[in-house]
Amino acid sequence: MKFSLLALSSIILSANAFAPAAFAPRRTATTATSLNADGFTSKIFKTQQVTLAETTETIVKGGRDLFPLLPAAFEGIKKVGVIGWGSQAPAQAQNMKESLAAAGSDITVSIGLRAGSSSMAEAKAQFDDVRDMWEVIKESDLVMLLISDAAQSKLYKEIFAAMKPGATLGLSHGFLLGYLDSIGEAFPEDMDVILVAPKGMGPSVRRLYEQGKEVNGAGINSSFAVHQDKSGKATELALGWGVAVGAPFLFQTTLRDEYKSDIYGERGILLGAVHAIVEGLYRRYQRQGMSPEDAFLNSAESITGMITKKISTRGIKAVYDDMSPADKEVFETAYSASYGPSKEILQECYDEVACGNEIRSVIMQGDRVNSGKGFIGKIDGTDTWKVGEKVRASRDDDAIPLNPFTAGVYVATMMAQIDVLLEGGHSYSEVINESVIEAVDSLAPYMHYRGVAFMVDNCSFTAKWGSRKWAPRFDYILDQLAYTAVDNGVPVNKEKIAEFTGHRVHQAVEECCKLRPPVDISCTAETTTKEIVIK
Amino acid sequence: MKFSLLALSSIILSANAFAPAAFAPRRTATTATSLNADGFTSKIFKTQQVTLAETTETIVKGGRDLFPLLPAAFEGIKKVGVIGWGSQAPAQAQNMKESLAAAGSDITVSIGLRAGSSSMAEAKAQFDDVRDMWEVIKESDLVMLLISDAAQSKLYKEIFAAMKPGATLGLSHGFLLGYLDSIGEAFPEDMDVILVAPKGMGPSVRRLYEQGKEVNGAGINSSFAVHQDKSGKATELALGWGVAVGAPFLFQTTLRDEYKSDIYGERGILLGAVHAIVEGLYRRYQRQGMSPEDAFLNSAESITGMITKKISTRGIKAVYDDMSPADKEVFETAYSASYGPSKEILQECYDEVACGNEIRSVIMQGDRVNSGKGFIGKIDGTDTWKVGEKVRASRDDDAIPLNPFTAGVYVATMMAQIDVLLEGGHSYSEVINESVIEAVDSLAPYMHYRGVAFMVDNCSFTAKWGSRKWAPRFDYILDQLAYTAVDNGVPVNKEKIAEFTGHRVHQAVEECCKLRPPVDISCTAETTTKEIVIK
Repeated sequence: MKFSLLALSSIILSANAFAPAAFAPRRTATTATSLNADGFTSKIFKTQQVTLAETTETIVKGGRDLFPLLPAAFEGIKKVGVIGWGSQAPAQAQNMKESLAAAGSDITVSIGLRAGSSSMAEAKAQFDDVRDMWEVIKESDLVMLLISDAAQSKLYKEIFAAMKPGATLGLSHGFLLGYLDSIGEAFPEDMDVILVAPKGMGPSVRRLYEQGKEVNGAGINSSFAVHQDKSGKATELALGWGVAVGAPFLFQTTLRDEYKSDIYGERGILLGAVHAIVEGLYRRYQRQGMSPEDAFLNSAESITGMITKKISTRGIKAVYDDMSPADKEVFETAYSASYGPSKEILQECYDEVACGNEIRSVIMQGDRVNSGKGFIGKIDGTDTWKVGEKVRASRDDDAIPLNPFTAGVYVATMMAQIDVLLEGGHSYSEVINESVIEAVDSLAPYMHYRGVAFMVDNCSFTAKWGSRKWAPRFDYILDQLAYTAVDNGVPVNKEKIAEFTGHRVHQAVEECCKLRPPVDISCTAETTTKEIVIK
Repeated sequence: MKFSLLALSSIILSANAFAPAAFAPRRTATTATSLNADGFTSKIFKTQQVTLAETTETIVKGGRDLFPLLPAAFEGIKKVGVIGWGSQAPAQAQNMKESLAAAGSDITVSIGLRAGSSSMAEAKAQFDDVRDMWEVIKESDLVMLLISDAAQSKLYKEIFAAMKPGATLGLSHGFLLGYLDSIGEAFPEDMDVILVAPKGMGPSVRRLYEQGKEVNGAGINSSFAVHQDKSGKATELALGWGVAVGAPFLFQTTLRDEYKSDIYGERGILLGAVHAIVEGLYRRYQRQGMSPEDAFLNSAESITGMITKKISTRGIKAVYDDMSPADKEVFETAYSASYGPSKEILQECYDEVACGNEIRSVIMQGDRVNSGKGFIGKIDGTDTWKVGEKVRASRDDDAIPLNPFTAGVYVATMMAQIDVLLEGGHSYSEVINESVIEAVDSLAPYMHYRGVAFMVDNCSFTAKWGSRKWAPRFDYILDQLAYTAVDNGVPVNKEKIAEFTGHRVHQAVEECCKLRPPVDISCTAETTTKEIVIK
């Protein structure tokens, strides 16, 4: 999930190609549509093989100790241009600038913004070299295009045309490929196209990088992809970029796998499904007799304060393992009933993203917003979130319950999200980062601090819109099928519970977690409030 | 909205063309993509010009007195084959057979079903000539293809190939064109393609036809379209078909306008939005202190029992005009707050249907159901509908309130649906039939009798799925934006109320209603229970 600059303009749609779920659009021979089974190689960074469940992946572990290798990885690059000032851009630009300086490199890092951008003043206050985006694009050897999805889909032609010959296009999200797929276009063949996608929002990328100065290797994991490698140096540059912005480990993906898993994930357990689970359980617990405050404590607070913390430190299964026998029974009941309905919506969402429908929807909503037919109002005014404010204001962290029913619903949805991605052929690294680590380590702490609604209201356009679109679907189906099953006394599905406890992902999560030091994102009033607000 | 046979099989999607909202796919010169501004002409049926708001439309008024004209309209047709036994097929086949017989025609009407169809026994019990669909298709001069949308999209190639040269393809829904659009295909150029789309579900088409024996002209209004007219006789045949199945008046549309307005309408005020409004207000009224039973009375019962009845007999504005000043104020508050949020979702829905996304979604959900990844479980098990059952069981029709807040939300959504269609260029006839008449005359009486959830759970696959997809969206946005505005004391938007009271649609509704005798669909235990269950 990206939390990026909301900068929409009207976008003209032209005749588009539709690619259904299982159909990968034709690519030229120079583009990477699938991962090499043997992984990737690097002459600069040490790769290592990790075994995640039944698969082996090649990764690079990051850390400040690798900064001396950056000049070699950035060979031929003199100027890096970071375009945008949303969530990722400030974090990545600052991290990269500091890393290159620490390596003694004289590569410059500049920020490029549209003339008249409302972020100009803030960017200039925080970064020394901020100029017009077209000027920066024209001179940069690596153009890190970190403007919003909508802005990318509007400006891509002029940006491609403005880049100098031999320059590399860098992305932190595969959305632009998804958009090009949907209109039957492609990147210009003569440029390198790479991706480095930190699996967390910008503020986390920055904060953990800073923590990395004390704890080597702290940071946000990142996927990378080499989509076009005209120069033969694209892999080294992508790895260098990832190391420079502070990734504790880098795993390989493709642009297409990245946009599918990313857009899907934020509609699921990262944001949309959490929103839905809280709304539904908040209502349900009140119908069962709880006060609104207790209902909020047992739904939202339980997820962001207890369940995700446990997953973050000890893995998904620990939520269940640590329960009393009575709580386990409640968990099993909720899990059994929720897994199927949640998976149904998740599968639909995955298919909609994969076939291009969801990207078209995002673009059309952008058009409606621009033409005054769409608004995307705030969600934080309803009773649920008003009560949530009160509960947070008088919060006693030690009194937050780990509600076993809530845990059953949440974990079932997380497991369903994982299974849909695995069935879709995504690597364990990608699956775990998009479904577990980003959820519990990057987003949940912010949600706990400011509330789920605040997160929904202040994230990137693609995520915000997606969350509004999909949360109600999860809410309704859980209400209609899962909770009614529980109320009708449908017995625990022992097979489903056995699949959960014996799932291979647990070992893979454990392995993934070993690849970086345990970190705790601390959200404080001084920092978070300011940082989380997306420009 | 069609209530048709659920007959899904796996459908292979191939590369599809994407046509955004404003983009009409290329058509051959022989196909009708837009209406002739001068209307249509007939040498057999008397046409008349009606003025609906600022527009003039050409229509044909139906009635049993026109049956003697059927042989001329069906010139060259010896055998009519009705394919399917869903909701429309039994009604249209029976009506047509009786009308042709009344006209002294020897044209035969046969039912064609797939071998092994679960409807075979029932069809044979109700109709004398029921045979294998391929046999019927091969021999028919008019093939009325009334199988489900999904089955059409799966079988269309074989059906086109099986039809005899010169035979006419008849549809009651433009979905197949939408599907062909979405995959870049078209109807074979050498056949006539016509549509007659009754604006009500099959049981209403049948029941009102029967009532027409006492009250000449009673029936369900119908649109008709001539998509390809190779023979030069397509318009007369379409008009004849419409008269034969009992349309009190026939107005012209195109296949594309029909599928856009139909798929959109059932997701809106016909089904999806009603579902949403009831769910949201049922919760809201309880939060305000009502008992569950009273909350249901003031939401669902108020809509299906009072508001729609008033609209049916005296038009939309009468709901407001008849209120006390105090109630008017409540209505205005609810209307002002709800119109915008409802319209936002309606516009999104219209755009999704128009660009092909929604049709792709329906097809993909069919695939998931077939492959065991989707289920479409029932919605009727939640608290809302369980309480609804109780309320209906002890119903006192005279005690059902016309809740002015509920009326404000419902009417605002209906008006927003009308405005989106008018802005999309649909004719007043189509707009009024898809947004008002079908809602209050065809669906609401059934919903009142068996409940909204029953209707959602038992309608055609396309409608059922669409309602599940869109209802939650209306519910959430009304909760997040409309009801919060009311609770925050946002004042009545006098301009919006003036737009409502002065809207040109009111005169047009009045004119439309004059075109057929006032009728009341009576739902009784003996008939409705059986008829509404879709095979």
